Amino acid sequence: MSETIDTRILSAIRKPGGISGGDLAHQLGISRAAVWSHMEELRALGYEIEAGPHRGYRLISAPDLLHADDLMAQLTGPLVVGREIAVFQETTSTSDIVDKLARDGVKEGMVVFAESQTRGRGRLGRRWHSPPGKGLWFTVLLRPDMRPSAATRFVIAAAVALCRALRETAGVQPEIKWPNDVLIRGRKVAGILIEMNAELDHINYLLLGIGVGVNLEARDYPAELKPLATSLRIETRALVNRASLAVAILRELDQVYLAIRGGHFTALTEEWYRQCGTLGGQVTIKVGDRIIQGRVEAIDDEGVLLLRTQHGRIERILGGDVTVIK
Amino acid sequence: MSETIDTRILSAIRKPGGISGGDLAHQLGISRAAVWSHMEELRALGYEIEAGPHRGYRLISAPDLLHADDLMAQLTGPLVVGREIAVFQETTSTSDIVDKLARDGVKEGMVVFAESQTRGRGRLGRRWHSPPGKGLWFTVLLRPDMRPSAATRFVIAAAVALCRALRETAGVQPEIKWPNDVLIRGRKVAGILIEMNAELDHINYLLLGIGVGVNLEARDYPAELKPLATSLRIETRALVNRASLAVAILRELDQVYLAIRGGHFTALTEEWYRQCGTLGGQVTIKVGDRIIQGRVEAIDDEGVLLLRTQHGRIERILGGDVTVIK
Repeated sequence: MSETIDTRILSAIRKPGGISGGDLAHQLGISRAAVWSHMEELRALGYEIEAGPHRGYRLISAPDLLHADDLMAQLTGPLVVGREIAVFQETTSTSDIVDKLARDGVKEGMVVFAESQTRGRGRLGRRWHSPPGKGLWFTVLLRPDMRPSAATRFVIAAAVALCRALRETAGVQPEIKWPNDVLIRGRKVAGILIEMNAELDHINYLLLGIGVGVNLEARDYPAELKPLATSLRIETRALVNRASLAVAILRELDQVYLAIRGGHFTALTEEWYRQCGTLGGQVTIKVGDRIIQGRVEAIDDEGVLLLRTQHGRIERILGGDVTVIK
Repeated sequence: MSETIDTRILSAIRKPGGISGGDLAHQLGISRAAVWSHMEELRALGYEIEAGPHRGYRLISAPDLLHADDLMAQLTGPLVVGREIAVFQETTSTSDIVDKLARDGVKEGMVVFAESQTRGRGRLGRRWHSPPGKGLWFTVLLRPDMRPSAATRFVIAAAVALCRALRETAGVQPEIKWPNDVLIRGRKVAGILIEMNAELDHINYLLLGIGVGVNLEARDYPAELKPLATSLRIETRALVNRASLAVAILRELDQVYLAIRGGHFTALTEEWYRQCGTLGGQVTIKVGDRIIQGRVEAIDDEGVLLLRTQHGRIERILGGDVTVIK
């Protein structure tokens, strides 16, 4: 983790007792006046910071803002996902940015957020609605030493990580709709997009793109998405701090990535089964031009869906549009 | 195909009888003086063009030069591979260029050549030796509407196309070493590198990178490659016109791409078997850290190698380093 001064300040003033200006200046190797000036900059961003002659500095509240230094301040410990973070005000698509960084040799674990995307991507080239300041739209760079067929594991793992973070942070009960959607009460609250650059037998790098509807109101959705999409705000009526949710998601992503690399993917699939609204149900799946109906039996150790068709055969399904028949 | 004036001129003067200056000016809708000036530019590039007051213009010989307009002039007819061609004097890697073009939405079939590459790529991040003016180093952009697992077919198909073009143009008898090398008398003359950008169930685009040692002399190879690599020049003692070879390869690639899209991959595998020096032989394969020994039985309909191990089991091999045991 490359720690900036703001990262270290935010980490120190977040502790319950805060920290004195003198101690902070000493730790950072800068003057007390410079410390004061950093505090003023953070206040200008909306951070509420208590400061008293004897009490030192203490963080009271953080704005609903994605600040790379602050996200990194909250992600302590040795981790891969989130060891470098960048936040863009606006970009075409965070995956475009991370793809360029990946080609330039940036290490895995880099995360790029955007407050808004002008060309956010969903699966199969679809657009992803990502209005400014109301959601989390980000892409994680991973370099797993695996074959392309293993990429499916990452969508399963990411769905599990998202569910954990949404439960912890917003108290909701999300469901996974295979392969890559997270729903609350049947409507999509988050989506996962995996893109990879690969040779035949080796993933060069993998872009894990995630979008979460956090504080969008019903009016923020275009008409055609209203019946299909939801947000944490709509579901809980509470405003959720996006930075806290982002930190929770990155921490969980780091955990599941550790699990995959440690050969513990099966444990993740078991957690996935418990979250999976699709499991055991009758589904209609559209794969290219083909329509397949059947009952969802399981996912295999590569993350592929096993569907029992009406003829009793098991079909291995890699992707496609799932329609759940009630 | 976007026809430039040079493309149309080269196409016309290549015809056995040539074409009169007046007819050419009329066809192109430019003045006779402008036609003359284009001829002078082509002559400056090394094109030998006959011109007489009554005979008109006729191409006598073309330089050993990759000229995009001329390559396109020789690739007539409706085709996908080669409908747009660009030639760079030097680039890091032609696949880098085509990758950027692909992200910008360029249509499939685009081909980028470079006279030399400073960071030519081989498989698994290895370097590819590509000195100026002596070989063909290029990348083709394809957008097959297929799953990532189908990418293996393209390496099989490209190897078949390369063998056809090398036989036709240089009269050599190439062999395929699975998965991606073409050999003459046991030494590598050409290599194929497939990279793809994919979602879990869909190839967004595929970069088919090809390198052919054409006119390299033994002294052009670094010491460590000398025992492993060869060129058409070394094998035949003749200089091969690189443009003619390039045109032959692109034409064959277009044919095999058509075959794959038409569902005729099996016919290609049969041709591949006949070319495959590896088939039936005992091989040692290194896949990651694993060493597998066995006899090459076949390739399946996705292009995966089926190896019968010493225990009699069939293993599906997707990639890896093949060492042929004599």
